[in-house]
Amino acid sequence: MEKVLWKPGTMIYPLPAVMVSCGSVPAEYNILTISWTGTICTDPAMCYISVRPSRFSYGIIKKNGEYVINLTTKSLAYAADWCGVKSGAVHDKFKEMKLTPGPATKVKAPLIMESPVNIECIVKEIKELGTHHMFISEVVAVHAEKELFDNKTGLFRLDLAIPLCYSHGKYYETGKYLGKFGFSVEKKRKSRKTKTQRD
Amino acid sequence: MEKVLWKPGTMIYPLPAVMVSCGSVPAEYNILTISWTGTICTDPAMCYISVRPSRFSYGIIKKNGEYVINLTTKSLAYAADWCGVKSGAVHDKFKEMKLTPGPATKVKAPLIMESPVNIECIVKEIKELGTHHMFISEVVAVHAEKELFDNKTGLFRLDLAIPLCYSHGKYYETGKYLGKFGFSVEKKRKSRKTKTQRD
Repeated sequence: MEKVLWKPGTMIYPLPAVMVSCGSVPAEYNILTISWTGTICTDPAMCYISVRPSRFSYGIIKKNGEYVINLTTKSLAYAADWCGVKSGAVHDKFKEMKLTPGPATKVKAPLIMESPVNIECIVKEIKELGTHHMFISEVVAVHAEKELFDNKTGLFRLDLAIPLCYSHGKYYETGKYLGKFGFSVEKKRKSRKTKTQRD
Repeated sequence: MEKVLWKPGTMIYPLPAVMVSCGSVPAEYNILTISWTGTICTDPAMCYISVRPSRFSYGIIKKNGEYVINLTTKSLAYAADWCGVKSGAVHDKFKEMKLTPGPATKVKAPLIMESPVNIECIVKEIKELGTHHMFISEVVAVHAEKELFDNKTGLFRLDLAIPLCYSHGKYYETGKYLGKFGFSVEKKRKSRKTKTQRD
């Protein structure tokens, strides 16, 4: 395959587009949507969000040292995009997007109840990298929508919520299922018990 | 919505499943597939990968201080899964998956030529978080597949490659297009020139 050489840039895709909720009291509650987020450690469960200091939520998160990551879905696409474009300095995002703040268990920041998964996070370190500062955080609790649990298997079916992808400036549905982790060695594993390594 | 409270866990999804190539000479070349990766800063362009020290590639990346992130697609799903399950200690992953190593420009690690986007990375810091160590890195070059550029607009159409998503243990295609960043204020922006904030 022939390649075109680009200058250094941010091209890791697809990414989630998560709604980060913050604030310790209702008057301070705000939401910002970001894609510079991810898991950085399995145990302890740790994640990060990278945020521009100019964002209205930046100061709230820095001051309180906590926030909630709310996963987004097809039905939340409009609100997610809007909360990523508008500023909490002039908008009550919960109210204007008709989103419902709910109580978290370990942090004061609110859950967004319309999200299928809410991840409570406590900031451990802030790295000032450049345009963005990275909040390195520990996951302290996770809430999952009850309706997405399969009654027969007990498994959590995140796929039924149609998670939102963000890829190179565009939003997509999480699409056609291609296989589960380890599918490439599935037949062999049954007989040889191949050890899988990845999380 | 009714919620179920979970213990702290790694639930940020969907994520990319990237193939990380490493090694400074052909005999050392290896590939590991990971989803604990993402962008952490726009300028300078920075990203991370988090890797278990027990992974065969860990020592190679740590020793050389560099690697390449190769984005994956529907057609690379089998190879991506396989490279995430098997170990380079006993497999020549390039050879067994019929992948082609190609020259990078700023690092010695090889590109995977079948990938639509290759991101050359230099490690700036290693954070030993727990089960995973995070390689905080700077992006030093990006290669993009020539065939994915639109002849008329010049735009890079990553979507045409059908990027692979990893969500809660399963692989999916990046699915139906829902809108571009800023679509929720599109009409207003034309008249009011609303400033967008997000990258």
